[in-house]
Amino acid sequence: MLKTIKKIGVLTSGGDSPGMNAAIRSVVRTCAFHNIECVGIYRGYQGMIEGDFKEMGPRSVNNIINKGGTILKSARSSEFRSPEGRKKAYDNLIKQGIEALVVIGGDGTFTGALTFNSEYGFPVMGIPGTIDNDIYGTTHTLGYDTALNTVVDCIDKIRDTASSHNRLFFVEVMGRDAGHIALNAGIAGGAEEILIPEEDLGLDRLLESLQKSKASGKSSSIVVIAEGDKIGKNVFELKDYVDANLPEYDVRVSVLGHMQRGGSPSCFDRVLASRLGVKAVESLLDGVSNFMVGLKNDTVNLTPLSLAIKGKSEIDRELLRVSDIITT
Amino acid sequence: MLKTIKKIGVLTSGGDSPGMNAAIRSVVRTCAFHNIECVGIYRGYQGMIEGDFKEMGPRSVNNIINKGGTILKSARSSEFRSPEGRKKAYDNLIKQGIEALVVIGGDGTFTGALTFNSEYGFPVMGIPGTIDNDIYGTTHTLGYDTALNTVVDCIDKIRDTASSHNRLFFVEVMGRDAGHIALNAGIAGGAEEILIPEEDLGLDRLLESLQKSKASGKSSSIVVIAEGDKIGKNVFELKDYVDANLPEYDVRVSVLGHMQRGGSPSCFDRVLASRLGVKAVESLLDGVSNFMVGLKNDTVNLTPLSLAIKGKSEIDRELLRVSDIITT
Amino acid sequence: MLKTIKKIGVLTSGGDSPGMNAAIRSVVRTCAFHNIECVGIYRGYQGMIEGDFKEMGPRSVNNIINKGGTILKSARSSEFRSPEGRKKAYDNLIKQGIEALVVIGGDGTFTGALTFNSEYGFPVMGIPGTIDNDIYGTTHTLGYDTALNTVVDCIDKIRDTASSHNRLFFVEVMGRDAGHIALNAGIAGGAEEILIPEEDLGLDRLLESLQKSKASGKSSSIVVIAEGDKIGKNVFELKDYVDANLPEYDVRVSVLGHMQRGGSPSCFDRVLASRLGVKAVESLLDGVSNFMVGLKNDTVNLTPLSLAIKGKSEIDRELLRVSDIITT
Amino acid sequence: MLKTIKKIGVLTSGGDSPGMNAAIRSVVRTCAFHNIECVGIYRGYQGMIEGDFKEMGPRSVNNIINKGGTILKSARSSEFRSPEGRKKAYDNLIKQGIEALVVIGGDGTFTGALTFNSEYGFPVMGIPGTIDNDIYGTTHTLGYDTALNTVVDCIDKIRDTASSHNRLFFVEVMGRDAGHIALNAGIAGGAEEILIPEEDLGLDRLLESLQKSKASGKSSSIVVIAEGDKIGKNVFELKDYVDANLPEYDVRVSVLGHMQRGGSPSCFDRVLASRLGVKAVESLLDGVSNFMVGLKNDTVNLTPLSLAIKGKSEIDRELLRVSDIITT
Repeated sequence: MLKTIKKIGVLTSGGDSPGMNAAIRSVVRTCAFHNIECVGIYRGYQGMIEGDFKEMGPRSVNNIINKGGTILKSARSSEFRSPEGRKKAYDNLIKQGIEALVVIGGDGTFTGALTFNSEYGFPVMGIPGTIDNDIYGTTHTLGYDTALNTVVDCIDKIRDTASSHNRLFFVEVMGRDAGHIALNAGIAGGAEEILIPEEDLGLDRLLESLQKSKASGKSSSIVVIAEGDKIGKNVFELKDYVDANLPEYDVRVSVLGHMQRGGSPSCFDRVLASRLGVKAVESLLDGVSNFMVGLKNDTVNLTPLSLAIKGKSEIDRELLRVSDIITT
Repeated sequence: MLKTIKKIGVLTSGGDSPGMNAAIRSVVRTCAFHNIECVGIYRGYQGMIEGDFKEMGPRSVNNIINKGGTILKSARSSEFRSPEGRKKAYDNLIKQGIEALVVIGGDGTFTGALTFNSEYGFPVMGIPGTIDNDIYGTTHTLGYDTALNTVVDCIDKIRDTASSHNRLFFVEVMGRDAGHIALNAGIAGGAEEILIPEEDLGLDRLLESLQKSKASGKSSSIVVIAEGDKIGKNVFELKDYVDANLPEYDVRVSVLGHMQRGGSPSCFDRVLASRLGVKAVESLLDGVSNFMVGLKNDTVNLTPLSLAIKGKSEIDRELLRVSDIITT
Repeated sequence: MLKTIKKIGVLTSGGDSPGMNAAIRSVVRTCAFHNIECVGIYRGYQGMIEGDFKEMGPRSVNNIINKGGTILKSARSSEFRSPEGRKKAYDNLIKQGIEALVVIGGDGTFTGALTFNSEYGFPVMGIPGTIDNDIYGTTHTLGYDTALNTVVDCIDKIRDTASSHNRLFFVEVMGRDAGHIALNAGIAGGAEEILIPEEDLGLDRLLESLQKSKASGKSSSIVVIAEGDKIGKNVFELKDYVDANLPEYDVRVSVLGHMQRGGSPSCFDRVLASRLGVKAVESLLDGVSNFMVGLKNDTVNLTPLSLAIKGKSEIDRELLRVSDIITT
Repeated sequence: MLKTIKKIGVLTSGGDSPGMNAAIRSVVRTCAFHNIECVGIYRGYQGMIEGDFKEMGPRSVNNIINKGGTILKSARSSEFRSPEGRKKAYDNLIKQGIEALVVIGGDGTFTGALTFNSEYGFPVMGIPGTIDNDIYGTTHTLGYDTALNTVVDCIDKIRDTASSHNRLFFVEVMGRDAGHIALNAGIAGGAEEILIPEEDLGLDRLLESLQKSKASGKSSSIVVIAEGDKIGKNVFELKDYVDANLPEYDVRVSVLGHMQRGGSPSCFDRVLASRLGVKAVESLLDGVSNFMVGLKNDTVNLTPLSLAIKGKSEIDRELLRVSDIITT
């Protein structure tokens, strides 16, 4: 290891996700392990601009591995989108003696890091933290596994009441651009139909599927819908449409909302966060930068940030088929 | 015990709630313990009208004490509101040899039972099952304790993201006529303000309270709102109002919805259900009827169904004060 | 309110329990509400002897209502059992300007407080915090409801494997002197038999009961055993005894252990803690001391500490009967 | 697809694990999807010998995807180890018209299937179901992910009490031959040291590590120990040893036990079970047999049963290093 770097800054940015704290802990302790200083930057890029810094030693991240959210807070910073904002941020880093950055977040976070790097040559490494799992170059983003379990737990609860009343439920889950959550949680929740942005099922096929489900002897049904699905109606309009066309159903809507972002991270997310944090810091110490650390084939790997931003995290088409079969 | 009764019917009606299955189990096994036959009536009063009956022995309720929902299903029956419907139901009971009923549900369920009793002199006992805790004569209804824990768990998750982003969240919980869930879950969730039907806080006081909270150094806030609060705006209108009047806040809305009705019942709800089921059956065997079994001063007690329907389950005003103090 | 008191100290002592943090938060904020200073005393009486104090304002208890354990730490202090130790403690309190104490814990904690008061006339109020629910004068101690849910959740998991393999499980739960946890969690977990200190079932009756259970068609069984039950064999000896006498059973043992003390407190425990904290502080401000705040008939009440120590928290004998009936 | 097979049998054998029901559901529904009959075989190979069969249609697996354990029950069969036992089993299959088998379980289950196939040429496919993750040819076995979350949840609870009392806890988790659970749950639970069968840390290194941990300012510690670790002392002897050698620690032991096998399966385990069930059945319909379906590089793959039995599922050595670093 080169270890020419003496001080690393770490921040979280964009929507928070479970596992961010575990990643912060890993970054801080990996720095301590290698006798590097570590500085926590509060409220993402905005805190970088405002100089909202705090030295972090291994004991300052005690008892956070199991906490949702981010102790470094997160914020969106419009100021960082301007050259003036980035200049201020850079000056603060220099003043503080910070020589490299680990940024934890999603697409927007990485875009900011890359712009910053292109202007100032500042070494950055990205850790993918978002429940949506919509980042290219990693099979899993931090928080995704936890969110899946949260959503499935909610669907299980809704099924209790759905099957007690022979009702049809539309459950809207997060995922504006990606159907990962809807597809996996839908299969795991035993959903009869799953609507995702990647596929336009079409209203006719949905009605048909619901009718078939009723005919097959199912007394209750759950349809899981990603926020960003392409069926052309929001979840409440969809309810009205089905109410009008399938009067035998008693449709209810549940929008799971922000609770999907919270909660204590799953074992998987904590272990992943620990691995990615170690790799991000050690890559910087090895002289590597401008990459995202991620998981591929169960192994920690590196993807250029530019690719992580441009690429698309495809859903697994096999799962669409599995879903069709097991809802028989 | 008189034990002149040879066969008891049991049904669940109205909105389902966690603990209903535990109550069914208790009713069925108490019948078996006293060598009485027990018949499960499916889909509440509608199943009574349609003769949707099934003999139940102690083994037919194995492994249901921990399940949410109701294995007997629930339904609302408009037909049972007509004399003709009730006549059909009565004829079915007689044909089946059922001599007394245990009905598990809320206000509506008890009203139906009382009307039926007044027409046919049929012995009925009620068990209060609803998450809303809005039944007079019992400090706890089945499912209320479970729902509180579900709601608090959701608020905890939302707080993770609220405090990561310094946001204000409006969390709408169930309770059209009663603020029990909002008040208790609000205190337990650390809510800065709680809006309930029993109290009209007023928009000005709400704004004031939020400003005070910010001034006191709190960076994020959660307001818990019962469905039926009296502030005159629904939760989305309320968000718009606060957005307009307190631009320093970034308000988000979360409507928890039907998941509040589901889930594995808490220890408290399972024990309560077990106690109430025993008491309901043994009361009938003792020649007592037209009462609701409930909990008062931690003791199982009886309240005339007529009173249970008319009375109102008041919130504990002490809690309003506690809430004010601990949000300091 | 007299409010002659200017500064209150708060500590936790003995075994920790979920809800202690919520009680600390309530004490601290009630002090702030009444413009009284509050001092956190670390590690119970030992910290009092060592002067391990910290001023606490309303923001120093942010985000702890949902945390298990105690941020003030707990410890057993043998030094506090000596007059010299108590003298040191008293001197520290005086030096710090502390004029009254709120102590959160169980029997031992209250005994210490009472001795201290008898020697120095120092005003103390007790809040019952222990999962065992073995304190006279309150129907619920802090942490008891949470522990019940933890135990029931474990029993549910064990039942999955018990019923998959047609096995008999002995599950040992906490409760050296009191069977509250075993009795309630046993009923809620569907245990076939429950062994508690308050009753000596006898080995013959246990074997008989297990045989009857098998004969009734149950393929798996769970026996819940309080640590302090009186059957005269520990749980592993009991397994050997049953293995020898009922070879048709395949007995497994599970000792739940310390996890029963941890976890995020239930809604009930958080609300109770909030209520008790308010009452403890306001009692002191009203000139009342040497009492324990507790819950009776769902109302906050006061019990002299001397009585709380001497009395015994009886189990509800009705539950023994309920348990017999519903395991039919 | 050849689809020459008309009827498939499915069984679970060995220790149960969460996700087995989801796999059964998937097998049954994939059969229905392809218009193949499906027969559930109860109690594993023993039920095959006794002819304990039941026809299963798509509705007979409703509402089981979220249930722990196995509705088909499991058992170990010594009779199946004899040629006579296997002959009886074969005759029953032929009589029932079953032409292929899907067996869900671990090493022992697959060995039985392979022996059976070698004698009768009966087509079999295996699905790996065990929480231990000790099967070669798949990165994940059914139940492993769920068990990890259960163990981490327990460690989190234990940490509450450990850190309240500044104690050292030894937590024993399942894993007789494999340290997967201990290693991953240990990292996720923030364990200071992890003892696994694959590595002999040595008693001296353990003491050293605990002393270093205390010196670094950690006030409480958790050591996670796999059942089958090689340190040469069981967990209680280890406690005595550390008590004797590190008197500054107050060591407690918690053996998590059988609850690790139960509980509602995680999203991951449900989705994996669904995928593997589809693949197992469709492989048989394609004329493929004697393979185990598993997961590799996030893709469903096939491993010859003979290899699955012989191979060893290695732990990820990278994790040992990560664990060392993040406990800094």
